[in-house]
Amino acid sequence: MASGVGIDSLPASTELDRLRIVLVAARNPLNIGAAARAMSNFGFSRMRVVNPFAKAFREARSAVGASAVLAGAEEYRTVAEAVSDCALVVGTTAVRHRELQHPLRRLEHGARFIRRQLASRPVALLFGSEKVGLSNHDLSHCHWLMRIPTREHHISMNLGQAVAVCLYELVRNPMAVRVSEISPEKPGLATADEVERVTSMLVDLLGASAYMSPSRAPSTAEKVRRLVRRLKLSVHDAELCLGILRQIAWKVRSGPSAR
Amino acid sequence: MASGVGIDSLPASTELDRLRIVLVAARNPLNIGAAARAMSNFGFSRMRVVNPFAKAFREARSAVGASAVLAGAEEYRTVAEAVSDCALVVGTTAVRHRELQHPLRRLEHGARFIRRQLASRPVALLFGSEKVGLSNHDLSHCHWLMRIPTREHHISMNLGQAVAVCLYELVRNPMAVRVSEISPEKPGLATADEVERVTSMLVDLLGASAYMSPSRAPSTAEKVRRLVRRLKLSVHDAELCLGILRQIAWKVRSGPSAR
Repeated sequence: MASGVGIDSLPASTELDRLRIVLVAARNPLNIGAAARAMSNFGFSRMRVVNPFAKAFREARSAVGASAVLAGAEEYRTVAEAVSDCALVVGTTAVRHRELQHPLRRLEHGARFIRRQLASRPVALLFGSEKVGLSNHDLSHCHWLMRIPTREHHISMNLGQAVAVCLYELVRNPMAVRVSEISPEKPGLATADEVERVTSMLVDLLGASAYMSPSRAPSTAEKVRRLVRRLKLSVHDAELCLGILRQIAWKVRSGPSAR
Repeated sequence: MASGVGIDSLPASTELDRLRIVLVAARNPLNIGAAARAMSNFGFSRMRVVNPFAKAFREARSAVGASAVLAGAEEYRTVAEAVSDCALVVGTTAVRHRELQHPLRRLEHGARFIRRQLASRPVALLFGSEKVGLSNHDLSHCHWLMRIPTREHHISMNLGQAVAVCLYELVRNPMAVRVSEISPEKPGLATADEVERVTSMLVDLLGASAYMSPSRAPSTAEKVRRLVRRLKLSVHDAELCLGILRQIAWKVRSGPSAR
């Protein structure tokens, strides 16, 4: 039933292959690994690392379960070399207030620009080091900057999480909503006859429980009838209800001492 | 200029406070810490942990920089207790094919339902353990399930990243795009006079460089003029261009031996 759901709603893999995720001076092997994992989750394959702490990169690469993304990661000495084949270079930043020399776009908006470019041309998306982000020199290679809409008092995200959120926004597809909805097969609805049996059982039970005064019985029965119809019971649930009501009715009639 | 940008576009904090992030049987202190960090980044505060590996939870809580979110995390023995005050309980899952007993929504879609509920009522969002996700028993407490649109061949996300992506979708606001765009103040455009000086310098230079045959000079000059206007030079850049062109012109006139 769900076959094919998922990949069918991601952008074509040739488009995703045009994105280079560039990690500049990453320090923590866990973060490099997490970035690679998110890339694999969302269908991106081209990781580039600039000047990583050598030990961190080695460790990330040799970690158990290190992905094909990491194995294929390309190492560069400078940002200029890492982005040289890209038509658009976008830097990520948590900063909002400092004297930015670049246009700054929120992720929701920036991702649209990036997707448009990816349809035909390579794009680089830069992430800075965990401690200091991208330097002014790194930023000078960028056409514009993008920020994740975090709250003002805690803007700095973990590197692996920031990569995951950016890539999610790039593959996010509000139009895929309909094809992706899966509901378990709806069991058949109970017939009117079955529903009416539940209704009568309930009405009888209420009468036996002295919930209804005899004079008001007819109108209460109608209320109960409407209620039971609103429940839209399945065949199975109608049977369950009948069983439960029978059990209660038996208990009510037998009195408190019965077990 | 950017003052207030960011928080202003997140949902009101009372709404975010209505969401309980419930981690069921989390095993890795780093993941618990990462989940808490993402919550703080996106303005959520109510973490609940069900049956965490005791050591993992202790370590996460005592980690350097552990957040207020972690300090305030509530511990429960069962899922039932952890979700008891919630009007809607949503489970996250990577699974698509197994016999799901629940409706399954893609994150883009499910988040809309959750946001609608959060306007008035508490909602629980459940994440399972790193190894096995949510059990069938955990799922029996859920009204429906939600999945992140990962690709079919690598559906399983890191816990901290999955939490970050879900929370991002919940605060994501495509309508905030306009107020969030920040552009550095545009420098004043060069006047027509300045632009024409650049044009003449360039035309002269092309003449001196024998790029233009004398008979075609007028039409080429027009092409150059249109080109320079398309550049929309700022005052500053027009001056830069003039400087560069002067330098080149001097070089061209002085001949190859000049320095």
